[in-house]
Amino acid sequence: MRIGILGTGTVGQTLGSKLVALGHEVVLGSRSKGNAAAGDWADRNGPRAQAGTFAEAAAHGELVVNATGGTVALSAVELAGPENLAGKVLLDVCNPLVFSPTGELTLDPVNDDSIGEQLQRALPQTRVVKALNTVNVAVMVDPDRVPGEHQLFMAGEDTEAKAQVTALLGEFGWPAGRVLDLGGIDAARGLEMMMPFWMRLMRHYGHADFNYSIRTAN
Amino acid sequence: MRIGILGTGTVGQTLGSKLVALGHEVVLGSRSKGNAAAGDWADRNGPRAQAGTFAEAAAHGELVVNATGGTVALSAVELAGPENLAGKVLLDVCNPLVFSPTGELTLDPVNDDSIGEQLQRALPQTRVVKALNTVNVAVMVDPDRVPGEHQLFMAGEDTEAKAQVTALLGEFGWPAGRVLDLGGIDAARGLEMMMPFWMRLMRHYGHADFNYSIRTAN
Repeated sequence: MRIGILGTGTVGQTLGSKLVALGHEVVLGSRSKGNAAAGDWADRNGPRAQAGTFAEAAAHGELVVNATGGTVALSAVELAGPENLAGKVLLDVCNPLVFSPTGELTLDPVNDDSIGEQLQRALPQTRVVKALNTVNVAVMVDPDRVPGEHQLFMAGEDTEAKAQVTALLGEFGWPAGRVLDLGGIDAARGLEMMMPFWMRLMRHYGHADFNYSIRTAN
Repeated sequence: MRIGILGTGTVGQTLGSKLVALGHEVVLGSRSKGNAAAGDWADRNGPRAQAGTFAEAAAHGELVVNATGGTVALSAVELAGPENLAGKVLLDVCNPLVFSPTGELTLDPVNDDSIGEQLQRALPQTRVVKALNTVNVAVMVDPDRVPGEHQLFMAGEDTEAKAQVTALLGEFGWPAGRVLDLGGIDAARGLEMMMPFWMRLMRHYGHADFNYSIRTAN
């Protein structure tokens, strides 16, 4: 499958490398042409890996992943071009993290909005699916780093788009039964708002190889 | 132990009944004297159960539980009287839920503040511990409603106060090893911000007998 990734940070690169390893053709997109991180990544990942602009990544992908920092996600999809994303699934994995100079974490947006919803409003012709934002990127592409039956959570308006994302998560190693569909894209609020808790857990454990397992009576 | 409970709703009553059953002497406190719900509760729960005002409940308790609705917690402790809470542990179990006329959930405070922190600022002579707010009240007092090794999370400034709360949670059926200390009272933000996710899970499962189990690599 042709996949575009917006964002050349650790999340974008790690997802990109995994997708290339799975046989997909990936363009890792950055804000400006000739991004060094994206070029190095493409060089390291062989012929199915290319670097490009946000617009080139979006145009390339049959499915596109938003792996930008949450606070720049909207400007990234604007640069990518809504027309390059029209009719496609946009898998949004980001979190709207804002760190103060003293390291204090807040989210923006939060509470009555989310990045997932902002993206869906900005891209009415695109089917946005929020997923993967509740785990560290190493766990995203290798769920067995964490033992047991832990889960992912998904939000989005379009059932078929969520099925496509579920299939892709299956390639990463997440069985469909461990991907919980929590409803429309407004459920992205709850998923993004788990980050302050997640950060405390990371501090508690001293690493990021953990995940949520929901235990239920039936 | 003498325990005061602020709040006569389902959470206050359920915690109160459990505490009475465990042998504690409980005053269930309400905003106004002669609250019918509190009186009925006291009648149903025998000689160790009494109804009173917020101030009477606070004065009675060696440990006090805040089980009010989150948005009225500050006014409740003001009525309870900071002097009646001075030197004591206040176990805060509430969530700052605000439902719009259409049923949409938001939190207030959120993001850069929490009820736990508000209470600690309002009551500098009291040791506030946030806990239990991440599970339904039926699960709070009967963890075995949910199978497996699911957990509770705790935030607060005072180690000895957290140890007291951990002991009380042990009486409820939560082994100390399943109560994770996530740090200072500012960790209450993350705990309260889990509610939108929790509400989506409740909708997904169709009931509230679930809880989080954190799976970790080591």
